[in-house]
Amino acid sequence: MSEDMGVTTKRSEDFSKWYLDVVRKGNFIDQRSPIKGFDVIMPWGYAVWEIIQKSFDTLIKDYNVKNCYFPSLIPERLLKKEEKHLKGFRAETLMAAELASGEKLEERYALRPTSETIMYYMFNLWIRSYKDLPLKVNQWCNIVRWDTKMTKPFLRGREFLWQEGHTAHATKEDAEKLIKHVVHMYGEIYKSLAMTPLILVRPKSDTFAGADYSVVFDTLVQDGKVSQGPGTHLLGQNFSKPFDIQFLDKDNNKQYVWQTSWGMTTRQIGITICHHGDDKGAVLPPEVAPYQVVIVPILFKNKEEIVLNKAREVKEYLEQAGLRVHLDDRDYSAGFKFNEWELRGVPLRLEIGPKDIENNEVTAVSRMGDKKRIKITELAEVKKTLDGIQKSLAVHSEKFLLDNIRDVQNMNQLKDISKKGGFLRGNWCGSGECEDMIKTDSGGYEIRGTLYEKEEKPFAACLYCGKPAKHVVYVAKAY
Amino acid sequence: MSEDMGVTTKRSEDFSKWYLDVVRKGNFIDQRSPIKGFDVIMPWGYAVWEIIQKSFDTLIKDYNVKNCYFPSLIPERLLKKEEKHLKGFRAETLMAAELASGEKLEERYALRPTSETIMYYMFNLWIRSYKDLPLKVNQWCNIVRWDTKMTKPFLRGREFLWQEGHTAHATKEDAEKLIKHVVHMYGEIYKSLAMTPLILVRPKSDTFAGADYSVVFDTLVQDGKVSQGPGTHLLGQNFSKPFDIQFLDKDNNKQYVWQTSWGMTTRQIGITICHHGDDKGAVLPPEVAPYQVVIVPILFKNKEEIVLNKAREVKEYLEQAGLRVHLDDRDYSAGFKFNEWELRGVPLRLEIGPKDIENNEVTAVSRMGDKKRIKITELAEVKKTLDGIQKSLAVHSEKFLLDNIRDVQNMNQLKDISKKGGFLRGNWCGSGECEDMIKTDSGGYEIRGTLYEKEEKPFAACLYCGKPAKHVVYVAKAY
Repeated sequence: MSEDMGVTTKRSEDFSKWYLDVVRKGNFIDQRSPIKGFDVIMPWGYAVWEIIQKSFDTLIKDYNVKNCYFPSLIPERLLKKEEKHLKGFRAETLMAAELASGEKLEERYALRPTSETIMYYMFNLWIRSYKDLPLKVNQWCNIVRWDTKMTKPFLRGREFLWQEGHTAHATKEDAEKLIKHVVHMYGEIYKSLAMTPLILVRPKSDTFAGADYSVVFDTLVQDGKVSQGPGTHLLGQNFSKPFDIQFLDKDNNKQYVWQTSWGMTTRQIGITICHHGDDKGAVLPPEVAPYQVVIVPILFKNKEEIVLNKAREVKEYLEQAGLRVHLDDRDYSAGFKFNEWELRGVPLRLEIGPKDIENNEVTAVSRMGDKKRIKITELAEVKKTLDGIQKSLAVHSEKFLLDNIRDVQNMNQLKDISKKGGFLRGNWCGSGECEDMIKTDSGGYEIRGTLYEKEEKPFAACLYCGKPAKHVVYVAKAY
Repeated sequence: MSEDMGVTTKRSEDFSKWYLDVVRKGNFIDQRSPIKGFDVIMPWGYAVWEIIQKSFDTLIKDYNVKNCYFPSLIPERLLKKEEKHLKGFRAETLMAAELASGEKLEERYALRPTSETIMYYMFNLWIRSYKDLPLKVNQWCNIVRWDTKMTKPFLRGREFLWQEGHTAHATKEDAEKLIKHVVHMYGEIYKSLAMTPLILVRPKSDTFAGADYSVVFDTLVQDGKVSQGPGTHLLGQNFSKPFDIQFLDKDNNKQYVWQTSWGMTTRQIGITICHHGDDKGAVLPPEVAPYQVVIVPILFKNKEEIVLNKAREVKEYLEQAGLRVHLDDRDYSAGFKFNEWELRGVPLRLEIGPKDIENNEVTAVSRMGDKKRIKITELAEVKKTLDGIQKSLAVHSEKFLLDNIRDVQNMNQLKDISKKGGFLRGNWCGSGECEDMIKTDSGGYEIRGTLYEKEEKPFAACLYCGKPAKHVVYVAKAY
């Protein structure tokens, strides 16, 4: 798979091109597949996804969510049951309606754009009494949405991988408690990614199709734009009514269940790269890096075996300490290897050469370029160094977010300050017209929402109409 | 999810009905989905799959196979590149060709019935030199095949989950070495399932579409029929030529790669149930049981807390010893719980009541009904008991297979002895006509293949034509 190596574009020159370089050459994804927007997730990118999967899967299992698998095809008649839901997904839903021979099927089946309708058809069969509640299931699967916009690896595609959690509860309170816990679990994933999101309740216009409200993790990336991370939706009784999901409560009365759904996708990999990367390539936080440490032996003639043996010893020691370690003993130059692992984002490189062995040490170089020597008798230091890298990325991320939220009082300020990118914090009267006009007038800066579970009092009039404001909103340009 | 509990049909009365009862009521699968042949894999069934997945994933990673994810849709023009492959899958391939709006796409896309063609399109881009070989990738995904036959949960459906491994090598020898290792890895999975398969090389007529030969794990189940387990295929250069996958060898000559593909599906869950189950329900081998031990507290008035506390203590101890343990503290009768966990196939039940606590012991009842008391100070005995269960299932499976392979010399014997079910071992001249006639004449007993890597000398003339035989073949009725 050798090919033109290295990132040839600086972020400041062309962020988009830099990103494409990193994800392709870094073995994260290959967008040269024969079907546009359906990219191949490569081993290195998939390995990051496996780590995210494992963390989240452990969290949901601890919370007694059960993994299942539902059909990937949804009969069209089911999709039509919830009107807003259908409306939201109709434009990008792909249909299977015929066999290769040309023979038509009896009805059309949607390639799942999301699984509410097929799952809730089954919920109707499963739920009878309050004893069946809460019902909490999840599936890990692929999703197809025939987006007609420009595609971008991980960030915007026609197929992605995700988890979708779906729950049913006896009361609205229970459903909202679940949402709070899911937000907490996604927060844990964000910690492992060393990213600070803004957790926002979306405005009505951008709520998940068929939901009462949506809580979404918005993440700021280096070009000043925002990418939508995981979302959690209160579906209320919007689906339980058309799907007739009722339970007998303790007083023997029939009631409709209250529901939630929530998902996190492979987009997370792209967001992480855009958030932490530098001109050399990706920068992966140690907690999600497939290799946390790469050992590069520095080989000199006649000393190869001594160096390689020591390198193997160090690897074994670190692996026993629970770290993910790779020894790169390929027949390439050390410089070539340095570049490749920097491009891929490995947090820590250990160099071992004859000189190091003489001094009984290794040279440790962090992905950010910090260099130090570590005694081979003190390899526990490696773990501490990784913890330090994780922490410093997290601190940097939080600062980056806070530094890039700027208050604005009116459209002139918004247009002026928005040149800096990031979030603009302003006030909004709540009307759809003002929401639309803010976006049009600013060239794409849209209302992303209000803070989740943290009420903020308006500090000025509505950005657009100047009338009294109801909400403090965060405005940004999104991917 | 409570419903009519328990298995109401005996295996000897109606094996098919018994099986449907077990998989549905045992929470393995729900076939009441709104799309025929697309069943819902339920939490208990999915949990078994996760255990199989994890074991196999560890094995392939140790062998340096890299997980990836390829597009779920395959442009029709790619499917057409390898003629035999297309022919083999054409009848059951579903096509996506339009959006929900009715708008037609520029071309038709197959919902992957298997991924050779889409993967090898990418192999062509990735492989340049012998240094890129071997290339070994795998993906875990769903598969759609619009089978028109009767569907049966897990065993025959229109959608299933699987892993598909795909490799490219410089020589045929390397490819065949890979096949041998994959057969070994599937063998390890069969060990964990406590099943002894017959590992057969399929006759040409039943070779994977586009392959030179297929090595398949055939498993005998209790009704005397055989179900096909994982398969490994030598693709030779059949795909590398149409997909133009060439590499420069060390002498700078261009050569086509040699390829293999291999897959194992969720059918494995159904096979395991059919193989080990009894009239009470499933019997899961401890190595793949989601709960290896279920603790059922026997509650008497005023003693609840003492019993529950002891039960929790025992659970914690066993979990720390690495076992998967569930404490069933639901408000149901002990008898109800016994039935449910027997139905689901949990290998070992521990009962703890006030009497047991007085004697400082627990009552252990294996899924096969063996009962013994274990001192609470000697809980390590639990692990040993599970090992014993695993072993005894494996011994039973091997004996069952060996007892059900019967030699036959001619069609009369075949028809007579085939009433007993199982495998018939006979001789074959190698002609397609004889193969067809054996199946027709015997009412469905078909040649499943010859032993893999174990040559057997014919011991009689061809079963059908009576001419000199070339192969010793195994004949059976298949699912």
